[in-house]
Amino acid sequence: MSELRLPPVARPGDSVNDVDTPALVLELDAFEENMRTMQALAELHGVSLRPHAKAHKCPEVSLRQIALGADGICCQKVTEAVPFARAGVKDILIANEVVGAQKLALLARLAAEARMTVCVDHPEALAALSAALDAHQSCVDVLVEVDIGQKRCGVQSHAEAVALADQVARLPNVRFAGIQAYHGGIQHKHSFEQRQRAAEKGARLAAQYVKALQQAGHVCEVVTGGGTGTAAFDAASGVFTEVQPGSYAFMDGDYGAMEWGDLMVLRHALFLLGTVISVPTPERAVLDVGLKSTTAESGLPRVAGRDGLRCTGLNDEHCLLAADEAGARPALGERLRLIPAHCDPTFNLHDEVVGVRNGKVEAVWPVAARGLSR
Amino acid sequence: MSELRLPPVARPGDSVNDVDTPALVLELDAFEENMRTMQALAELHGVSLRPHAKAHKCPEVSLRQIALGADGICCQKVTEAVPFARAGVKDILIANEVVGAQKLALLARLAAEARMTVCVDHPEALAALSAALDAHQSCVDVLVEVDIGQKRCGVQSHAEAVALADQVARLPNVRFAGIQAYHGGIQHKHSFEQRQRAAEKGARLAAQYVKALQQAGHVCEVVTGGGTGTAAFDAASGVFTEVQPGSYAFMDGDYGAMEWGDLMVLRHALFLLGTVISVPTPERAVLDVGLKSTTAESGLPRVAGRDGLRCTGLNDEHCLLAADEAGARPALGERLRLIPAHCDPTFNLHDEVVGVRNGKVEAVWPVAARGLSR
Repeated sequence: MSELRLPPVARPGDSVNDVDTPALVLELDAFEENMRTMQALAELHGVSLRPHAKAHKCPEVSLRQIALGADGICCQKVTEAVPFARAGVKDILIANEVVGAQKLALLARLAAEARMTVCVDHPEALAALSAALDAHQSCVDVLVEVDIGQKRCGVQSHAEAVALADQVARLPNVRFAGIQAYHGGIQHKHSFEQRQRAAEKGARLAAQYVKALQQAGHVCEVVTGGGTGTAAFDAASGVFTEVQPGSYAFMDGDYGAMEWGDLMVLRHALFLLGTVISVPTPERAVLDVGLKSTTAESGLPRVAGRDGLRCTGLNDEHCLLAADEAGARPALGERLRLIPAHCDPTFNLHDEVVGVRNGKVEAVWPVAARGLSR
Repeated sequence: MSELRLPPVARPGDSVNDVDTPALVLELDAFEENMRTMQALAELHGVSLRPHAKAHKCPEVSLRQIALGADGICCQKVTEAVPFARAGVKDILIANEVVGAQKLALLARLAAEARMTVCVDHPEALAALSAALDAHQSCVDVLVEVDIGQKRCGVQSHAEAVALADQVARLPNVRFAGIQAYHGGIQHKHSFEQRQRAAEKGARLAAQYVKALQQAGHVCEVVTGGGTGTAAFDAASGVFTEVQPGSYAFMDGDYGAMEWGDLMVLRHALFLLGTVISVPTPERAVLDVGLKSTTAESGLPRVAGRDGLRCTGLNDEHCLLAADEAGARPALGERLRLIPAHCDPTFNLHDEVVGVRNGKVEAVWPVAARGLSR
């Protein structure tokens, strides 16, 4: 079976027409412009930009964000951080609670290689964190996660936040650095005004936590939060010292459909390339992409640049397309670009992302943290 | 960074309590019983069982199905077949249309190593297939895919089916073997009776295709189709010579919620193991699993074996749980088993599946075809 190797999805120098499908394609001009746009926004307001790597799981992306001025990255899981640390990222916030002996041991090892910060929302989890770090003789910064309305993780009261900060002060190998106040739900509010009002409310709640902690003697150097949807409001709030958007560099169907006002122009840079494998009727076509190359929890993908052609369903390995106008149906073998509805889990389905510019493949980057959810 | 290796998800001999999370856990007793149940059903009716490997993407699973009597496997994509061929599977149906030069070249190389069969529904695709095989001096069996109501791929008329079979007869390196008549939608009809009636209608339509082809001089050795939901009806139909279920070995939330009558008893064998990372209120808990370890297009996962505890949302790396009864909320650090709503895309998110028996890890199998969607 020595001949049976998998062909590469693409090679640098290839025409984009020769990229095998399904393939995740990144238009580098738009990607770079999006990165500059968000970096400029952060600098305008004097806040740190700490892009979230869960969106892309690709160290090559993070290295470019840091080269443009980002102050580090976020990861959502401890294993996810490993390829980024290996690639040389030196400042990583695990923007999440870390529970479990294996995870704490790995975090402690990571903390010997990079500046690590982690969220806590429970005294037992904090005690276990300190003990694991002590066993490995490493240290992390700790953020108390506060719930500003998401109803996910995070403490529910000022008293709990202060108690955790007090506990940090008493424990070895952990240092209190501030709070994380993230509200995922409001990132996706379609209306600009509703999103702005929700972000302002979140910032007010975060500010009240900062004040309560300060009154108890705990200075919040870091107030972090904000995703792509609210970053512009959070950066301007005077409360957040840092924003952690991820999707902004790529954009997806969900974010692309929102009202953005004129605060920030972000372009679709990420596409899922597919091939038409069946044209059973004049009104229908089937693409070779499906639930194993993108996801449907935020809706169906959109066909880019093709009027009158709609995605009507996504099966495991098939995307159903309906031509709403005569002549809109693509031909057998034709290649189409879809805009994934949700970029984060889409990246997590691909081993590589194909960077293209002016119709040529410029780079093929490993999605090195794909699947690293522990 | 030499120290920074990822810890294994589990090791054979470990207690299931030491498996890191998120982890895909397969209860081997239930898995083996499900495999025997479907094999016995196929043998009872004298049809071939060709389990679909897209459900699990794990060669170790296919080898066990073949050892129990399965006549080969299905794959949905050409790259997906590669790890199975490497593992020694000698008879593979690509139960799908194959379009594109890279894919045809790989199929031709596979056909030198295993008996390969592939579906066609278009004369241009068939001509390209024959030409690619000719260039590599290999041969495949061809099934004409016929649409029995799914409105996905497949020819729309007897005339088209006959024309394709005629074309196969004229072309080199391809041999006409029969038809594929698969209807994915009816697999998931909840009502036993509605599913039975829909399967019977599908079998009648398939039989009409077989008759039309026979009248044109083309013998259908193979009439293949049927998934987990209709396999019992299709096997008994007298029309199908082969069934291609995949999920039956594992079961999932969607299939588990259906009416099964007493034709076949299939047990939940596949679970997603998670750890409670946050307990912000007495009514809420958060698990460390999310859209990167399971999927939501068929609904939310269910909590196994825990009354009064419900999954209310799935974010990228968080699963939100609501306790509907006092005392039902799990403790911080507690480990829970979820039943994924849809097993196929869930397997595709994991690099390994952890086989357990009586609370012990017996094997850790690579999901070797994970991500192979080209």
